[in-house]
Amino acid sequence: MDKAPFPQKFDLIVVGAGHAGCEAAMASSRLGLKTLLLTINIDRIGHLSCNPAIGGLAKGHMVKEIDALGGMMGLWADAAGIQFRILNTRKGPAVRSSRAQIDRAEYMRVVQKSIFSQDNLWVFQDTASEILVEDGRTCGVKTELGESIPSDAVLLTTGTFLKGLMHVGLSNFKGGRFGDPASNTLSDSLRSLGFELGRLKTGTTPRLLKSTIDFDKMQIQPGDDPPQPFSFRNKTVPLEQVPCYLTYTNPEAHDAIRTGFDRSPMFTGVIEGTGARYCPSIEDKVARFPEKDRHQVFVEPEGLDNPEMYPSGIPTSLPFDVQKKMVAAIVGLENAQIVRPGYAIEYDFVPPTQMKPTLETKRVDGLYMAGQINGTSGYEEAAAQGLWAALNVAAKHDGREPFLLSRDQAYMAVLVDDLVTKGTLEPYRMFTSRAEHRLLLREGNADQRLTPKGREVGLVDDQHWEIFTRKENQLQTVIEAMKSIRIKPNAENREIMRSIGASIPGKAVELAALLRQPQMTIEELEVFYPQLAEMDDAVLREAETQLRYEGYLVKQEELVKKFKQLENVTLPPSLDYANVAGLTTEVKEKLTNVQPMTLGQASRISGVTPAAISCLEIHLKKLGFL
Amino acid sequence: MDKAPFPQKFDLIVVGAGHAGCEAAMASSRLGLKTLLLTINIDRIGHLSCNPAIGGLAKGHMVKEIDALGGMMGLWADAAGIQFRILNTRKGPAVRSSRAQIDRAEYMRVVQKSIFSQDNLWVFQDTASEILVEDGRTCGVKTELGESIPSDAVLLTTGTFLKGLMHVGLSNFKGGRFGDPASNTLSDSLRSLGFELGRLKTGTTPRLLKSTIDFDKMQIQPGDDPPQPFSFRNKTVPLEQVPCYLTYTNPEAHDAIRTGFDRSPMFTGVIEGTGARYCPSIEDKVARFPEKDRHQVFVEPEGLDNPEMYPSGIPTSLPFDVQKKMVAAIVGLENAQIVRPGYAIEYDFVPPTQMKPTLETKRVDGLYMAGQINGTSGYEEAAAQGLWAALNVAAKHDGREPFLLSRDQAYMAVLVDDLVTKGTLEPYRMFTSRAEHRLLLREGNADQRLTPKGREVGLVDDQHWEIFTRKENQLQTVIEAMKSIRIKPNAENREIMRSIGASIPGKAVELAALLRQPQMTIEELEVFYPQLAEMDDAVLREAETQLRYEGYLVKQEELVKKFKQLENVTLPPSLDYANVAGLTTEVKEKLTNVQPMTLGQASRISGVTPAAISCLEIHLKKLGFL
Repeated sequence: MDKAPFPQKFDLIVVGAGHAGCEAAMASSRLGLKTLLLTINIDRIGHLSCNPAIGGLAKGHMVKEIDALGGMMGLWADAAGIQFRILNTRKGPAVRSSRAQIDRAEYMRVVQKSIFSQDNLWVFQDTASEILVEDGRTCGVKTELGESIPSDAVLLTTGTFLKGLMHVGLSNFKGGRFGDPASNTLSDSLRSLGFELGRLKTGTTPRLLKSTIDFDKMQIQPGDDPPQPFSFRNKTVPLEQVPCYLTYTNPEAHDAIRTGFDRSPMFTGVIEGTGARYCPSIEDKVARFPEKDRHQVFVEPEGLDNPEMYPSGIPTSLPFDVQKKMVAAIVGLENAQIVRPGYAIEYDFVPPTQMKPTLETKRVDGLYMAGQINGTSGYEEAAAQGLWAALNVAAKHDGREPFLLSRDQAYMAVLVDDLVTKGTLEPYRMFTSRAEHRLLLREGNADQRLTPKGREVGLVDDQHWEIFTRKENQLQTVIEAMKSIRIKPNAENREIMRSIGASIPGKAVELAALLRQPQMTIEELEVFYPQLAEMDDAVLREAETQLRYEGYLVKQEELVKKFKQLENVTLPPSLDYANVAGLTTEVKEKLTNVQPMTLGQASRISGVTPAAISCLEIHLKKLGFL
Repeated sequence: MDKAPFPQKFDLIVVGAGHAGCEAAMASSRLGLKTLLLTINIDRIGHLSCNPAIGGLAKGHMVKEIDALGGMMGLWADAAGIQFRILNTRKGPAVRSSRAQIDRAEYMRVVQKSIFSQDNLWVFQDTASEILVEDGRTCGVKTELGESIPSDAVLLTTGTFLKGLMHVGLSNFKGGRFGDPASNTLSDSLRSLGFELGRLKTGTTPRLLKSTIDFDKMQIQPGDDPPQPFSFRNKTVPLEQVPCYLTYTNPEAHDAIRTGFDRSPMFTGVIEGTGARYCPSIEDKVARFPEKDRHQVFVEPEGLDNPEMYPSGIPTSLPFDVQKKMVAAIVGLENAQIVRPGYAIEYDFVPPTQMKPTLETKRVDGLYMAGQINGTSGYEEAAAQGLWAALNVAAKHDGREPFLLSRDQAYMAVLVDDLVTKGTLEPYRMFTSRAEHRLLLREGNADQRLTPKGREVGLVDDQHWEIFTRKENQLQTVIEAMKSIRIKPNAENREIMRSIGASIPGKAVELAALLRQPQMTIEELEVFYPQLAEMDDAVLREAETQLRYEGYLVKQEELVKKFKQLENVTLPPSLDYANVAGLTTEVKEKLTNVQPMTLGQASRISGVTPAAISCLEIHLKKLGFL
């Protein structure tokens, strides 16, 4: 017996145990808040509803950021990862992203193990049916069982479960996920509290029986060797590594797909929710790009010991007979059995302009939302918001300043700022292009950007902090050495430079200058600075990037400073935009609706022009705020 | 790629992947029938919905019988068992039963592994919504997706999922199991085919968080050492063995329970389905036995690595606040957190007098039912019926005689005969007392009784058969030796007999006679017959039983012979009971309703008296059938 008794009242109830919920529950309990994780089915905690993969473009960045702050997703993914790859290794350092295939069952096991062994964290299986509110403040959750569980804060991470409705062709049926029940009353409770709700749609691919796939006809896609873990705290990963397989759709498959258009729930208007433009169904791709005669299909393992495979790239809600014809037309899948059909799912979300930058709702104190309920798509987007919301619940609980980051500090900040400022009309997915300062937001420096913040809020423990400071010290040592060691082009050095392929400079230069020669790597400069051999690989990679791109980085930081000036002008909540001279009615409405916290946030609201910002500045000066 | 393509048409579709469904699907596919296992959620295949335990009184017998026939449950339980005990070791050999605690997650893993690696067996995730029937014959299943899957036979093993409605206090909600969705249309399809449906109820206990239990205050209950596996094919079990813990309810807990009577869905009539008398809820026990001031609570592990424990003995559908008070009043559970509430569930069943002794429905050719849909309770009862039904589907498919056993051959036969002959008004559970020849139906001779049958139908493979014949040969050798070796009470032997504690006989006796002395065990007779040391333990135990109880066994077999005379008189389907002279209207109706296959079956219908059987015999003679 080592767990404290079930509290009479919680500091936080997290509703839903997907990626947002688990990340949030771990963070808040680790920060000492009495936290309840409320889930429809304990056995499904940490389930990967869609791809058996974590990370990817811009998403890997967020996993690293979560990890740098002391969050869990990176550790869990490392523990259950069965193939790791760094994408875009030939492109610039800003867009390099980590991605891993995940053993589904193992991921759930490690997540559940963390959750159940965490102090201050309790788990209860029941369905939330109502948010309890008193005097505009959250005071708990009521469940289907009829339990009223008191708490100061509630975080909703409901994924696709709010009035989930699944579609396969023109058939549809209720559920939160194929095989799992939906939550059918919570949306009504939100609506009766005055929230505006919307409807989104997402989809997933059919799942195939591994033993019916002809892998010999496909291109094998091994992972990186050795695998690079997500977590800054890990050097290796524990599981056996296995390959993916690559195949393609073809004109025959596309013809099959077209035969289902008249029974597609999307094309016939049966589905009302808006889908993600950036994660289209295969029927969407075929309809929108009729000139393309093939699309990639990555056949991904569902686990080391799992009889199914996940054909990534063909999410669909076409009728099942069409799904079968499509799959059978693909090379290597001629005899593949679909064990679970692909489907689309519609679900309720709460358009996120109703949230503050803390992810607390504007309407109800103490009520927070994270993940798909805020209109996003993706495990990593969900986890990032879960962590962000939990850190803000904790800050408020402890009477500290809100946990906020700016857009030049983290993708998480870009994500949250985009959501609460611009809102979203379709499932929002992160891209590196969404960050205006993406050169500053690299995977490799996520720890430099965020671990001190994580330490400050209390989520980075001593061991984590030691790993960070050790790396940081090495990094500073290397950078300093590379900038201070000067190499004269004397005969001896010329010989060495020639042997390592460096161009010979006309005068003495720093090692950093040699490194900036495009053909050079930092390892080759070991002849001039032997201590490099003792440095961690991650340190070398980051030093290389920081030295090589120093000029760009400096420029980027100057730009950030300029932006910051607007960002530092806070807008008083009392501001009545109707009285600001020179604003159009449309801009006044948008500002009133979003209630931006700063002039910077105001400037990012779509339709708010630089001219409007000037009017606002003048108004603030008039009122004495500037 | 090693799996055959998904068939156009199946020989059998099994609807539901619990204990009945999995056993049936394995048997039918192993016998060469193209079999589809249709399940609402692949991830839940082989889930133990209630106790994490298999076997127990009379249930262990059925597991051994399933195993003896070549079925799976014994093998699966051995692979996932974490505590094995033989119950009633101090009682007679007929009532000794094996029982094991099961690691829930591991059980599902091993079941799913068997299912997915089995030839002729396909799996598909979808919900059956309609039985397709043409000209009174089953021709397939229609699913929620709108798929029509053709097949010659359909076996329904729907458990608690048909219009499942769960109750906790006066709250209720739909679902097939807590956390899983129900099947809401299949019952209507059965009704429209003319089946009569009924409503039953079962319940389960709250699940507790292990780390909040004070085990020091409870009595530890280790398993047998070494553990005895269920399967005749296993000598050992693979997993680490762990203990259970014993505690008790008390007057304080009973007081708490009574405070919930006015909000009990059972006592207030909210639940309409009939519950199992033999597996009562704790509130039932407290209400029916007010004089008892305590009831046993076995706290059972849910798995080696599972954060939950299962408090067996306190199933309840009382309001959750009452469940909490009750649990907190129990010694050792003072601080125990309930992570999942106890609940009752009502579900549709098909009163089983609508089945033939093959478990095929009388109304629709090719439609079979097994498990809770037939009104039974228990994993073992379900698995036994699943196997029985599958063997009959296979027999019919191959044009062989039905697979039928008589009540003196197996508990499975008692089970099926009771169901189809007497029907049931409450969840039917097996007891040794239900078998009139229980001394013949021991766990230890299940293989002698049934493995030759299993071999005949093709489910016992060569390896299994070799294990059986080896044991059988040893057993015959031992029995023969024990009956033929005669010991003279000469001086030397008298000395030996004295040393092993045997009473000295007045004249030369067989070893068997010495063994019948109550204080003797077969091992002690090794001095007279050294070969015993080389025999398997199972052989020694069985030889001991057969020799010691020989007299009783012979008498029992004579009784069986008498019964068999009635059993051998088949009743022609054309028989019009209305014309049988001397029968009461009630008896005529019952016989017409049940349509017994034999005079023996007729004699077991409740209300059919020996006098009525005589009338039937006279009638049959008159018609020339006797």
